[in-house]
Amino acid sequence: MTEALSWVLTDTANRVYVEQCAITPASLGLPAAGGAWSVSKSRLQGGLADGVDVVDINNGHLSFTVLLSRGMGLWKGACGDCTIGWDSPARGPVNPMFVNLLEQGGLGWLKGFDECIVRCGLNSNGAPGIDRVRDNNGNLSEVMLNLHGYIANLPAKYVELKIIPGKRPQIVLTGVVEEARCFCPQYRLVTTYTTEVGSNRVDIRDEVENFADSPVEFQMLYHCNFGSPFLDGGARLVSPSLEVAPRDPRAAEDIKTWNVYRAPEPGYVEQGNYHDVAAAADGSTLAMLRNHRGTRGVTMRWNKKQLPCFCQWKHTSGPAEGYVTGMEPATNYPNLKTFERERGRVMTLAPGQRYVIDLAMEIQESQEQVAAIETEVGALLKRKKTVVHPQPIAKWSPGA
Amino acid sequence: MTEALSWVLTDTANRVYVEQCAITPASLGLPAAGGAWSVSKSRLQGGLADGVDVVDINNGHLSFTVLLSRGMGLWKGACGDCTIGWDSPARGPVNPMFVNLLEQGGLGWLKGFDECIVRCGLNSNGAPGIDRVRDNNGNLSEVMLNLHGYIANLPAKYVELKIIPGKRPQIVLTGVVEEARCFCPQYRLVTTYTTEVGSNRVDIRDEVENFADSPVEFQMLYHCNFGSPFLDGGARLVSPSLEVAPRDPRAAEDIKTWNVYRAPEPGYVEQGNYHDVAAAADGSTLAMLRNHRGTRGVTMRWNKKQLPCFCQWKHTSGPAEGYVTGMEPATNYPNLKTFERERGRVMTLAPGQRYVIDLAMEIQESQEQVAAIETEVGALLKRKKTVVHPQPIAKWSPGA
Amino acid sequence: MTEALSWVLTDTANRVYVEQCAITPASLGLPAAGGAWSVSKSRLQGGLADGVDVVDINNGHLSFTVLLSRGMGLWKGACGDCTIGWDSPARGPVNPMFVNLLEQGGLGWLKGFDECIVRCGLNSNGAPGIDRVRDNNGNLSEVMLNLHGYIANLPAKYVELKIIPGKRPQIVLTGVVEEARCFCPQYRLVTTYTTEVGSNRVDIRDEVENFADSPVEFQMLYHCNFGSPFLDGGARLVSPSLEVAPRDPRAAEDIKTWNVYRAPEPGYVEQGNYHDVAAAADGSTLAMLRNHRGTRGVTMRWNKKQLPCFCQWKHTSGPAEGYVTGMEPATNYPNLKTFERERGRVMTLAPGQRYVIDLAMEIQESQEQVAAIETEVGALLKRKKTVVHPQPIAKWSPGA
Repeated sequence: MTEALSWVLTDTANRVYVEQCAITPASLGLPAAGGAWSVSKSRLQGGLADGVDVVDINNGHLSFTVLLSRGMGLWKGACGDCTIGWDSPARGPVNPMFVNLLEQGGLGWLKGFDECIVRCGLNSNGAPGIDRVRDNNGNLSEVMLNLHGYIANLPAKYVELKIIPGKRPQIVLTGVVEEARCFCPQYRLVTTYTTEVGSNRVDIRDEVENFADSPVEFQMLYHCNFGSPFLDGGARLVSPSLEVAPRDPRAAEDIKTWNVYRAPEPGYVEQGNYHDVAAAADGSTLAMLRNHRGTRGVTMRWNKKQLPCFCQWKHTSGPAEGYVTGMEPATNYPNLKTFERERGRVMTLAPGQRYVIDLAMEIQESQEQVAAIETEVGALLKRKKTVVHPQPIAKWSPGA
Repeated sequence: MTEALSWVLTDTANRVYVEQCAITPASLGLPAAGGAWSVSKSRLQGGLADGVDVVDINNGHLSFTVLLSRGMGLWKGACGDCTIGWDSPARGPVNPMFVNLLEQGGLGWLKGFDECIVRCGLNSNGAPGIDRVRDNNGNLSEVMLNLHGYIANLPAKYVELKIIPGKRPQIVLTGVVEEARCFCPQYRLVTTYTTEVGSNRVDIRDEVENFADSPVEFQMLYHCNFGSPFLDGGARLVSPSLEVAPRDPRAAEDIKTWNVYRAPEPGYVEQGNYHDVAAAADGSTLAMLRNHRGTRGVTMRWNKKQLPCFCQWKHTSGPAEGYVTGMEPATNYPNLKTFERERGRVMTLAPGQRYVIDLAMEIQESQEQVAAIETEVGALLKRKKTVVHPQPIAKWSPGA
Repeated sequence: MTEALSWVLTDTANRVYVEQCAITPASLGLPAAGGAWSVSKSRLQGGLADGVDVVDINNGHLSFTVLLSRGMGLWKGACGDCTIGWDSPARGPVNPMFVNLLEQGGLGWLKGFDECIVRCGLNSNGAPGIDRVRDNNGNLSEVMLNLHGYIANLPAKYVELKIIPGKRPQIVLTGVVEEARCFCPQYRLVTTYTTEVGSNRVDIRDEVENFADSPVEFQMLYHCNFGSPFLDGGARLVSPSLEVAPRDPRAAEDIKTWNVYRAPEPGYVEQGNYHDVAAAADGSTLAMLRNHRGTRGVTMRWNKKQLPCFCQWKHTSGPAEGYVTGMEPATNYPNLKTFERERGRVMTLAPGQRYVIDLAMEIQESQEQVAAIETEVGALLKRKKTVVHPQPIAKWSPGA
């Protein structure tokens, strides 16, 4: 086997920056038999995307765009005839320089929200609101936590691309994003996207390090969002859910049909359901969104030991308003951090501690592939019936 | 007649972006007899202007700069020996990335305010303050409305330039700006600037579309600002005003001389007067600012059916603090949106509805031209006397 | 003597911008004997530094980087084997477009804080909090003052480089930064960095002008921050302090050892001490941070007539959290502006008034050089003993 080839695309500490490049088997002198894959780096210009650095990865079958300027989020993609992602009213990608996280009572994050996979954290995620923390003088003081934290609006300081040649070459993109400042927690996220040429899958490994000298709180949620062709009227969430509860009274209205999605409905108010899912002994678990006919599916795989909580976001509003559902594995439920802390769901990282999270996205392109995932989910459930709470429950929802 | 020539300068959806170009009759092989016009696209760099995209249009007599990065505002211009615009203490154009709209109690918009014609809206305009709206969970919640809304600080996602050849070629610049995000109203502004080679006039047509699936509120105000040579001590506003009232007690101090401007006066506190103007049967109306001697004027034309309200802003402070007056045709008066909603002056757009607004700016360069506008205004008034309210009135001003 | 050579690097008013250039004696045809100096201008790209314009100056012995995009701050440097500056958890330089000053209760400034010398002002500096000022309608209204004001997050609108040839050539970099907007104070900062080829010193001259037509308040603090090799366990502040008081109870804990620094200590909560220093008849004074062994020192020189106050910031936390001390000569103490105004320490600038401030940074590279500064400080003190207040005192600290 040939050795891996690698390129540093960004290294701010050493003033390294590649504005654009394109890599193909031909450009590397690799055999075309390995598949018609390609990787390109660009800098977008104009509009709200001005200055956004992106890497477009195409493994020959599955393609996707990684946003270097937005916390290494996975923007959109395609696999065969399926588009991956959703049509947000905010047409991005949006450079964080245009995003004021404090706008609209802490909902400013929505100005840039149009990614397929967007990380929420690292110091906080979930609903906006007032939290109490120690300030630089050691006193408890009130701070406004914005919706879903900072990480999605921070650009990568270091980005490296690697091609591992072989019968099935691997494309590996690594990015480093730091959420850190004086008197504040200091997180370093090292994220790696790996996809094999010709596959229907991308693997994500995240390492979050507390690089401060003191312990810090930590929250992470993966907001994985999909619309058509996976979401349609009658589409279903296939998840090994042991327990499901509505987040609030609004979600309780449709809790009986928690795993079924409606057709687009203008003015639909979002619903969120909280889940406890079954997992294999090693923690591995999964959830799939499949279309009504069961011919297309998108599956998220994660490890429950790393991400114990799972939130399902239903936003089946009109198509122009973002017809979408989110599968959201996380360290916590997306309530205000204050509540999650009370419930013991805010983690702490010791100085130097690294927290590893594995995630994968897989596309099902046929009835057989969809059925196989349904079987896999069924096996995890071991014939247990999902307990569906009709109303919000106290362990998961404030005010319940 | 030759066909129109057109160039797409920005199209973020398709990753199209022209950093710079320059177009002249010579570059197109058109006859020089058509006039020494030119259009150029540039990207500014350095200072607060860093990354601002501009199009400089010169029709051979009138020239002006359109800010692609600032909601397609008209920055400054010149016509013959007249400069068009004003000298704001904020020397721009300022890239919105530097503007925090929430600063200074919601007055952060002022950091970028130095345009000649700047749009205020689309979800709100007017004074900053607390409004109550439905949040993403359908609950009423308080949000901070910043001064004059978002639209002036949003970059165009699509820009197209057209040259329509002919005896008097036309220069046409179209831009699309979206103010939209998840859980929020979704507006698309399509604006077109048209100027004929050799003329003293630029026409603006705006189409605002609600591209969401639900009805949305909508506000628009055109903040048209002029200093020297039109504004000087003794300059006058010539408007077909049926009724004028001061916005607040401060404005009431000088309401008797509402249509006359003072010489620069350091420390002068701004005054705002609200007007109801006469219009022709088709709604067309106008207002002119003319200098003391009556040798120079700038006229704004609009349609009262589209923009029923008119606000006059007097800011005759010292020259370094922005000696300026604003003529502001609008859908509403620039009070806090909450008040305007109570008074029935906040419009609603149905899903897919497009609201068309026509506006024009014309320069008067001689006593004859100024007199002609005065005659035109007089004709609209039909000898009616302007009713001048000595104090703020309840239908227009909060607390009156 | 040859005439000075000069280059305009930025002039936004005239659309002048040099993206990069490099100047050396060879490039100018100057004799190499003048020293191996160099000056280069670059634009950083990627990460939080994206779009930051820097000038790297190397006088052959001392080198430093000036941040055109961040208020002309002095980022980092080196002199012989000494690095100058500190390792902030925020690895910059950070483009102000990413800094939301209102975040974290007004502490958002910290996101970009990693400079060696950073100006705090010009309308306010010090702790964040609510102040009451006149708004655009002349009414008293509450505004949030963010930590340390605006100036460090404003880019220069004009930058000029000058080389003055001679036996010892001088490198002179001038930048103009404006903090101004409608209805607000209007400040113009003209700053000039001068260093002589081969020297261990850089001189800074700042001129702050009120370019409005009305008087304005003005605050300025120079946050001069140093870590290793000057700061270590046992390092000392050598200052001609007549009087020292802790800022607050936390600082009072260690006030007996006010001039001694600890080794890095994870979780250390910052301490601030306020000083009144002795000065020569012309106002000139100085303070030095020297390492434990007394072999390295960094000295700040200023004029007490221009900058009457001096704050010492101790932040000897763990190395990853920013092991640093600040020497901070200023017009005031860094309390909330409201308190400083009450105590008469907020200056007023008349219209057109220019306030000149001279500052210098000097590196001591041997025991002899350190001892010489200690002698100079001793001479200013004239055998007076420093009065050390055990607790905060009323004239300097709120609530004392």
